[in-house]
Amino acid sequence: MFKRPRGTRDFLPDEMEKRRYVEGVIRRVFEGYGYQEVQTPTFEHLELITTKSGEEIKEHLYHFKDKGGRDLALRPELTAPAMRLYISEYQQKPKPRKIFYIGNCFRYERPQSGRYREFWQAGLELIGSSYPEADAEVIAVAVDVLEALGLKDYSLHVGHIGVLRRILDEAGVGEEDQNRVMGAIDKGEGEALEHLLDTLGLGARERELMAGLLEMEGERDTIEKARELLEGREGPLRELDSLEEVVEKLGSFGVTDYVIDLGMARGLDYYTGTVFEIYAPKLGAEKQICGGGAYSLVEVLGGKKAPTCGFAFGFDRLILALEMDKFKFNEVKKDRYLVVSTTEGLLDEAIRISRSLRERRKIPCQIDPMRRRLGKALSYADAEGFSHVVILGEEEYKKGKIIIKELETGRQSLMDIREVEGFES
Amino acid sequence: MFKRPRGTRDFLPDEMEKRRYVEGVIRRVFEGYGYQEVQTPTFEHLELITTKSGEEIKEHLYHFKDKGGRDLALRPELTAPAMRLYISEYQQKPKPRKIFYIGNCFRYERPQSGRYREFWQAGLELIGSSYPEADAEVIAVAVDVLEALGLKDYSLHVGHIGVLRRILDEAGVGEEDQNRVMGAIDKGEGEALEHLLDTLGLGARERELMAGLLEMEGERDTIEKARELLEGREGPLRELDSLEEVVEKLGSFGVTDYVIDLGMARGLDYYTGTVFEIYAPKLGAEKQICGGGAYSLVEVLGGKKAPTCGFAFGFDRLILALEMDKFKFNEVKKDRYLVVSTTEGLLDEAIRISRSLRERRKIPCQIDPMRRRLGKALSYADAEGFSHVVILGEEEYKKGKIIIKELETGRQSLMDIREVEGFES
Repeated sequence: MFKRPRGTRDFLPDEMEKRRYVEGVIRRVFEGYGYQEVQTPTFEHLELITTKSGEEIKEHLYHFKDKGGRDLALRPELTAPAMRLYISEYQQKPKPRKIFYIGNCFRYERPQSGRYREFWQAGLELIGSSYPEADAEVIAVAVDVLEALGLKDYSLHVGHIGVLRRILDEAGVGEEDQNRVMGAIDKGEGEALEHLLDTLGLGARERELMAGLLEMEGERDTIEKARELLEGREGPLRELDSLEEVVEKLGSFGVTDYVIDLGMARGLDYYTGTVFEIYAPKLGAEKQICGGGAYSLVEVLGGKKAPTCGFAFGFDRLILALEMDKFKFNEVKKDRYLVVSTTEGLLDEAIRISRSLRERRKIPCQIDPMRRRLGKALSYADAEGFSHVVILGEEEYKKGKIIIKELETGRQSLMDIREVEGFES
Repeated sequence: MFKRPRGTRDFLPDEMEKRRYVEGVIRRVFEGYGYQEVQTPTFEHLELITTKSGEEIKEHLYHFKDKGGRDLALRPELTAPAMRLYISEYQQKPKPRKIFYIGNCFRYERPQSGRYREFWQAGLELIGSSYPEADAEVIAVAVDVLEALGLKDYSLHVGHIGVLRRILDEAGVGEEDQNRVMGAIDKGEGEALEHLLDTLGLGARERELMAGLLEMEGERDTIEKARELLEGREGPLRELDSLEEVVEKLGSFGVTDYVIDLGMARGLDYYTGTVFEIYAPKLGAEKQICGGGAYSLVEVLGGKKAPTCGFAFGFDRLILALEMDKFKFNEVKKDRYLVVSTTEGLLDEAIRISRSLRERRKIPCQIDPMRRRLGKALSYADAEGFSHVVILGEEEYKKGKIIIKELETGRQSLMDIREVEGFES
């Protein structure tokens, strides 16, 4: 027997229904803000991926040569492809460009709860504006998705990558070393961070400031507290001001429930300003369901520099979070009819009636192509969750009548065939 | 500048809108008949693919070893994965099983018009029934999709693979040789076919019968004509009877417009009975948009033999066919609002109003995050196809008023802000 490849999933109908529902809500909210859907190929040139994420990512990539000798990789995320598309299609067009995507990505990792080798992301990019309302809008869209889905238990953390970076700037730490510092912070590698800061020869005062910021997490007044901590440090203070502007605009967008988190570093090197993450605490260690911020990637991929702000939802984790939150995906059980003829002579009539139910009454409806006898057909309908069975019996049919059995209550009623078919009576 | 890999496509918003629309119609029709959506991984074990399609397919596969040494392949079609899923999930469950899928597939081929290295299929499988109404239903679903989409120019060809095969049976031609014969017929390789029949030593009478059948194409009475041709040949005649049964049931399902085509061979070896193809003549050489029939694959993949009937639409060609048919995808132009503040002081108010339009009035609405002046914002709105611009001017705002400009007509009206926001007046 063939198995599916390790770390991948088959989605059965119940699961697909949830996924299509969540996808629909996401699409509706994104489009409400004027984002437009795009789709890129499943694989890209390997170089696009490594240019964005570094050679190290190859360790976690599915990459291979095609028969023409091209180095290709299954996409591990959707931002680099989206930026490639932006550069080739939109760079010369008016700004902002607002695009979104919902698609699958691939990473070769040890499979574990909530982590798969094929997984889905839903994300967007607002390209062209560096005003605070751009960042605020992007955050607001992410929050709106969760509100529209009815996720109850989540928390939004908003920070600014620039505050920490400006402290490192002022301490003379170069960009590459900064990236290593930010990486250690993002991964929560405390010891490695200490060691790195030792190596970089950071002064006591700077280390104090860094340590202070890393712990700063709280309500809006956290920004004020950070201002006190950073007194006299112009660079970092300016970044705090821009964070405050974003937070203010966030209020205009109706987002008032957030944690200011100055220790957030995000994993990738190209973040430049506002950063945010959304957690669903019930998911435990893998609680991050969304992450994003302002970044500068277009020029890294050969385009003309353009400020960008975007995010991606971990689609699979989002569904998991809804399930943990006891979200009811299918509150209303949909009608599904099975039409059964008690004699073979009425089979064509059963087919015709099933057609009327579909076409005239818009009810999902099917015949039983196994030609079961009535008793077995009823058990089948029960087991498969049909809502109604329409029974064609010879006696009733002669009188233009038909029996409809509602499976949940067991109630049977004798009805006019033409009425069942949805013709005016 | 990075390019996308050869033979792949980026889909921009206009194209995505079409694709999502067609996908939605397909899903609605499939579900109307009780088919349920499943989704399988993008890659499978190479062996699953070659077991179904033979080693030759490797020539056209993207296959590679993963880091664990597994031989994997990007799926070239969706039937084998669906059968794998059926065997592991549904084999023990009541029959029939009715599943569908819409997904991408990959073939390494020379890119040409209508052929891409990443392409989409939408298909279904009815597993468990060998009654004629099962085959007829499957064909009816395919036709219903085209009717629901409003494709005008298409033709359905229905045949039966058994008629030709029984003639070969009776001439003592073994299964493997039969497969080669069917392959040559399917590809329209006339010379190769003649040569093959020579080699197999087929008698003059059998060759006459084969030649006669290959040309038989027409209305329902074609079956009668074939009966005359095949007089006395029990095996082929029985298969004609079953084709006739399917065609009769097809009528009950409301499908009356088809061509009986006894020369249809379909490409793959596991077809057993009814076969059908749908063509969109406007597409020229690549005119086939759908193909399917009854086949027997479950046991080839290690499951318990189960009769199956299914089909797949070439999703990309279907869209092309609609375009060639001058189908109007977006008859109703949707409203899209841009809210512009003429002074920075009113930006927060603009954000708030855009929120009301989205939330209360369900209108896609956005602010201009570029902080353009009014004139430039209006040109931008025009270029980007917005339907309305909402203008916040200081004078009007003081009086609780706002200007709405309809871009198509250029008409401007002064309105109460609360009314625009969708509050009861």
